Amino acid sequence: MSMQKSSKELIYGRHPVIDALKANASIDKVLLQRGTTGDLEKELRYLTRDRNIPLQMVPKDRLNRIVRGNHQGVIAFTSPITLQRIEDVLPLLFEQSKTPLFILLDGVTDIRNFGAIARSAELCGAHAIIMGRNKTPLMNAEAVKTSAGALRRIPVCRQSSLPAAIEYLQQSGVRVLASDLTAEEPLHRIDLKGPVAFILGAEGRGISPTIAKMSNERFIIPQQGEADSFNVSVAAGIMLYECMRQRMG
Amino acid sequence: MSMQKSSKELIYGRHPVIDALKANASIDKVLLQRGTTGDLEKELRYLTRDRNIPLQMVPKDRLNRIVRGNHQGVIAFTSPITLQRIEDVLPLLFEQSKTPLFILLDGVTDIRNFGAIARSAELCGAHAIIMGRNKTPLMNAEAVKTSAGALRRIPVCRQSSLPAAIEYLQQSGVRVLASDLTAEEPLHRIDLKGPVAFILGAEGRGISPTIAKMSNERFIIPQQGEADSFNVSVAAGIMLYECMRQRMG
Repeated sequence: MSMQKSSKELIYGRHPVIDALKANASIDKVLLQRGTTGDLEKELRYLTRDRNIPLQMVPKDRLNRIVRGNHQGVIAFTSPITLQRIEDVLPLLFEQSKTPLFILLDGVTDIRNFGAIARSAELCGAHAIIMGRNKTPLMNAEAVKTSAGALRRIPVCRQSSLPAAIEYLQQSGVRVLASDLTAEEPLHRIDLKGPVAFILGAEGRGISPTIAKMSNERFIIPQQGEADSFNVSVAAGIMLYECMRQRMG
Repeated sequence: MSMQKSSKELIYGRHPVIDALKANASIDKVLLQRGTTGDLEKELRYLTRDRNIPLQMVPKDRLNRIVRGNHQGVIAFTSPITLQRIEDVLPLLFEQSKTPLFILLDGVTDIRNFGAIARSAELCGAHAIIMGRNKTPLMNAEAVKTSAGALRRIPVCRQSSLPAAIEYLQQSGVRVLASDLTAEEPLHRIDLKGPVAFILGAEGRGISPTIAKMSNERFIIPQQGEADSFNVSVAAGIMLYECMRQRMG
C-alpha cells in the first residue's frame, strides 16, 4: 500500500522528470543530487524556475532513501493540486463580473493550517490562494485531505514573487489588506464589498515587514484576552466570514 | 528529559493517588488494574465519580508499560488545566454584571482543535468551555501549548452530564445556540447581545441529535462552496467573533 502510494507520487530518472516538467504536470518540488552539473542541471534549473517549482540540491544518500531503484540523481514529487497563475485567474473573474476575493499566504507552512484556510476560502467564495515560491506549505495529499477536498477546487497560485503578485493585484484594482495588532480600525469597519485580498502571515512570526508595508490598509480583529492572537486558520476564517457577511448586505 | 517530564505528569501507587484525589489535584484520568476489588476500587470509584474524572480499567501490562516502578495497580495522569464547575462559574459572572458567553463541546476530541478553540474563546472574552464527562479531549500539555496558554486562563468545566449542564444554563437565562446546515437564519441575524452558549459538535459527526434538540435556536454560518462545512475550530472562531462584533455595538 505505502509503496504503491509513494510510487504514484514520485517521478524519477532524468528523462521522466524533464518530460513531466515539459508536459506541465503538477509538480510540488524537484530534488537534484548535489554536484550535478552540465546540461541536465541547466535544463532542470530553467524548467523549474519557469514554473515556480522549488529545486533542491540534496546529497545522494537522501535520494537513495526515497527511491531504491535508479533515480539517476533526480526525483520529482507530484502534487494532487493543480497550480495556476494569478495573471490567468484575475482577468477571468473581471470578465465574469465577479468581485475578487483572495487569500495571500506569506510564510504559512503548516499543512493543517493551509488545509483549513483552503476549506474556509472555498466555503466563503474566495477565488484563489496566492503565495510566493519560498516558505510554502507542501502541496500533498494530507493538505488536500485537511482541506476537505477544497484544494482540488479552489485555484492555488504559487508565484515567482509575492511582492510582484501584490503589485499586480493592486494595479488591477484589488485592495490588499493586512491584519495588525497595532491597527486601530476593527475588521468590521473596513469596507470589504469591493475587490480585496487578505494577507496571512506565518504562525508565530506573522506577516513579514516588507509585505506588510505593501498593504493598502491594516485592521485589527477585535480581541480582549491575554493570548497573543488567533490561530492563523481561525483568523482567515473570521476575515472571510466578515467579507461574506458584508457582501450579503 | 522525557522521563522527568513523564514522572511530573504521573502519580502512582494507592496512597499517592487517593491523596491527590482528596486534595482536589488536577487529574485528567485514572487507570486502575483490571480485576481490582475491595476498598481501593470502591474509594477510587467514589472519588473519581464525585469529580467527573474518567476511571479506566486496564490490564496490568499497560500499567507496567507506563510506570516501571511499583504502581500498585493504579496510575493517575495529572493535568496542567484546573477543572471547574459551571455551577460555580456562572453565579460569579452574574454577580460581576458580566454577560455570559460559553462554548459547549459535544464530542470534540482533537487536541489541536480543542487548543485553537480555547485560544479563540479567551481572545473573544468567553467565560468558560463546558463539556460532558465522555468523549473529551486530553487535558494535557500539548493542548495547553496549542491554546497558546489560554487553557491555563479560561475556566474549563467537565460536567458529569452535558444535557444537565445545558438545562442548568437555560434555567439560568443563557440561550443555547447550535449551528445547523439546514437552518435558515444566518449567524449575523441572531441576537448575541444577551447571555449565550454555542454548541460545537465533533469533527465529521457534528452535534449529536439529543444535544441539538435541546438548543434554543439554530443558525447557519453562511457558506457557498462545495466543502461540507468549516473546520470546528474555525467555526468556533467565527461564532465568537460575531458575538464580539455585536457586543461592541
